[in-house]
Amino acid sequence: MGLDDAVVKPHERLAEVLAGDLDAVNSLIRARMASEHAPRIPEVSAHLIEAGGKRLRPMLTLASARLCGYDGPFHVHLAATVEFIHTATLLHDDVVDESGQRRGRPTANLLWDNKSSVLVGDYLFARAFQLMVEPGNLRVLDILSNAAATIAEGEVLQLTAANDLKTDEGVYLKVIRGKTAALFSAATEVGGVIAEQPADTVEALRIYGDALGISFQMVDDLLDWQGDVGATGKNVGDDFRERKLTLPIIKAVAAADADERAFWVRTIEKGDQRDGDLDRATDLLTRHGALDATRDAATGWAETAKEAMRRLPADPMRDLLIDLADYVVARIR
Amino acid sequence: MGLDDAVVKPHERLAEVLAGDLDAVNSLIRARMASEHAPRIPEVSAHLIEAGGKRLRPMLTLASARLCGYDGPFHVHLAATVEFIHTATLLHDDVVDESGQRRGRPTANLLWDNKSSVLVGDYLFARAFQLMVEPGNLRVLDILSNAAATIAEGEVLQLTAANDLKTDEGVYLKVIRGKTAALFSAATEVGGVIAEQPADTVEALRIYGDALGISFQMVDDLLDWQGDVGATGKNVGDDFRERKLTLPIIKAVAAADADERAFWVRTIEKGDQRDGDLDRATDLLTRHGALDATRDAATGWAETAKEAMRRLPADPMRDLLIDLADYVVARIR
Repeated sequence: MGLDDAVVKPHERLAEVLAGDLDAVNSLIRARMASEHAPRIPEVSAHLIEAGGKRLRPMLTLASARLCGYDGPFHVHLAATVEFIHTATLLHDDVVDESGQRRGRPTANLLWDNKSSVLVGDYLFARAFQLMVEPGNLRVLDILSNAAATIAEGEVLQLTAANDLKTDEGVYLKVIRGKTAALFSAATEVGGVIAEQPADTVEALRIYGDALGISFQMVDDLLDWQGDVGATGKNVGDDFRERKLTLPIIKAVAAADADERAFWVRTIEKGDQRDGDLDRATDLLTRHGALDATRDAATGWAETAKEAMRRLPADPMRDLLIDLADYVVARIR
Repeated sequence: MGLDDAVVKPHERLAEVLAGDLDAVNSLIRARMASEHAPRIPEVSAHLIEAGGKRLRPMLTLASARLCGYDGPFHVHLAATVEFIHTATLLHDDVVDESGQRRGRPTANLLWDNKSSVLVGDYLFARAFQLMVEPGNLRVLDILSNAAATIAEGEVLQLTAANDLKTDEGVYLKVIRGKTAALFSAATEVGGVIAEQPADTVEALRIYGDALGISFQMVDDLLDWQGDVGATGKNVGDDFRERKLTLPIIKAVAAADADERAFWVRTIEKGDQRDGDLDRATDLLTRHGALDATRDAATGWAETAKEAMRRLPADPMRDLLIDLADYVVARIR
């Protein structure tokens, strides 16, 4: 996140409050990504895990468990589980997207090879499942294994929806619920479940995670059109070049006249992209208000997240999570 | 398996005895590989799952559970779990090996693309974890999640050991325990666990599966040198071309003189392979008795499997599993 705030950012305040727990998570991650027989595994994992990720997802689990008064040891296992699933997904995503850069560094598939990224990703998935079994809580297993299936389904849906101008906002929402929100909501939900909270508390945590994840991904998709490499580690226009139908472009296509539609058919469906096309695409998005509309949608989901969190009793941790929802959207203001 | 026996083969007799259970497994597999949102998933899965695989691994779970007198419904879930893990592994293997053919048909990565194989494999892994959670048995979850980690670790070890003439029989055993025996042994072990058998029975089933898997993989590696495409669906010499150090080649390298060693360095380490090299390699393997020694090793592991099974009380199902161990080796006699 590249916002240059004078105040300390909410995810940094969360990291301070949760510092002891986060240390335990990092130790557990390092211990479990080791492999006695295959040193390639920790090499590849460490490249990504130590690369300065914000540990946003594991912090959601830790914060939810603490907010619910949990005082056992297993929120650490579940936070590490969530980070392993996230890292495995990134390794496979970079293979699928043929990416060369993530978080401003060369990707693992570029530094080693696609084979290592696929297999080390599989190893981290398996490690995640070992970790999630340890608390011995079947409901937690249910939530996290369902999330893993939803993530994979969302990724396949994104793959088949790419290049297809028929992709509408409904399909887009399914894709981002899968690729992003499913893990956010599982991360917050299991924090409540492990703390044995009543159903309405767990449901409020789940809704918070789901809405936060949706808002987070919409902001990411907007930054792909108007961000800078320093802030996101991505190049502006990557989604256009990869012919991914994210919300800004879906909104512009829906408003296109015949001439504009021909442009989208050529550049997105047929993949025939020429010099100046990215500029024209950005111009069309701006002209139809697609970037503003995406910003509004992201803000709306952040509000949904905050409302869900406000159902829980007042608590400094609760207020930090509310601030986090604001901050996710503030990246684009 | 291409052996042309006059008698009915043990895996076919197993399939007859377990016909009702296998139907239930196949129904469950079809139901769970469906995806409401992403039709690409059942397309890719069905290509592999319906391709005439022998369902050997799920049959091991069903047979173990039945042998132990299990009469609940969950052996079917665990058998489907095992088949999903196996199928997911095959999808990822074909990407890693850049294969074009499996079971005599074009691979999914060739028919669709590597992206679909990676993501649909992830989906099947996730589906496997959902299925294994359903029986609500934490020990089963422990065994199967450990197997998944061992499989992935074995695959990475195989990747890093490829092209490396220092790979010895100890590393080879770790690789095949990971890529093959871990799932065989988990398949038989969970059959005993779900039937709530005493520790020595469960351990005998685990040893049977482990030894059967090792024998099975050694036979596979031998058939790569002397099989025919009809019997294996693979081309003779694939492992040589892919510079994989399997047992026959490890034994020949260990016995090599200076001139032969230079040949292996050029063809395996440097990957400089020319016309006639496969013939020379086969000739070296034969001359040093590496093929016979591999056959003997496979037979030895089959004997270990049979001994473990003989610890269990006499039962027609037990005898079928003993016959199966003989049959695995008979493929190369």
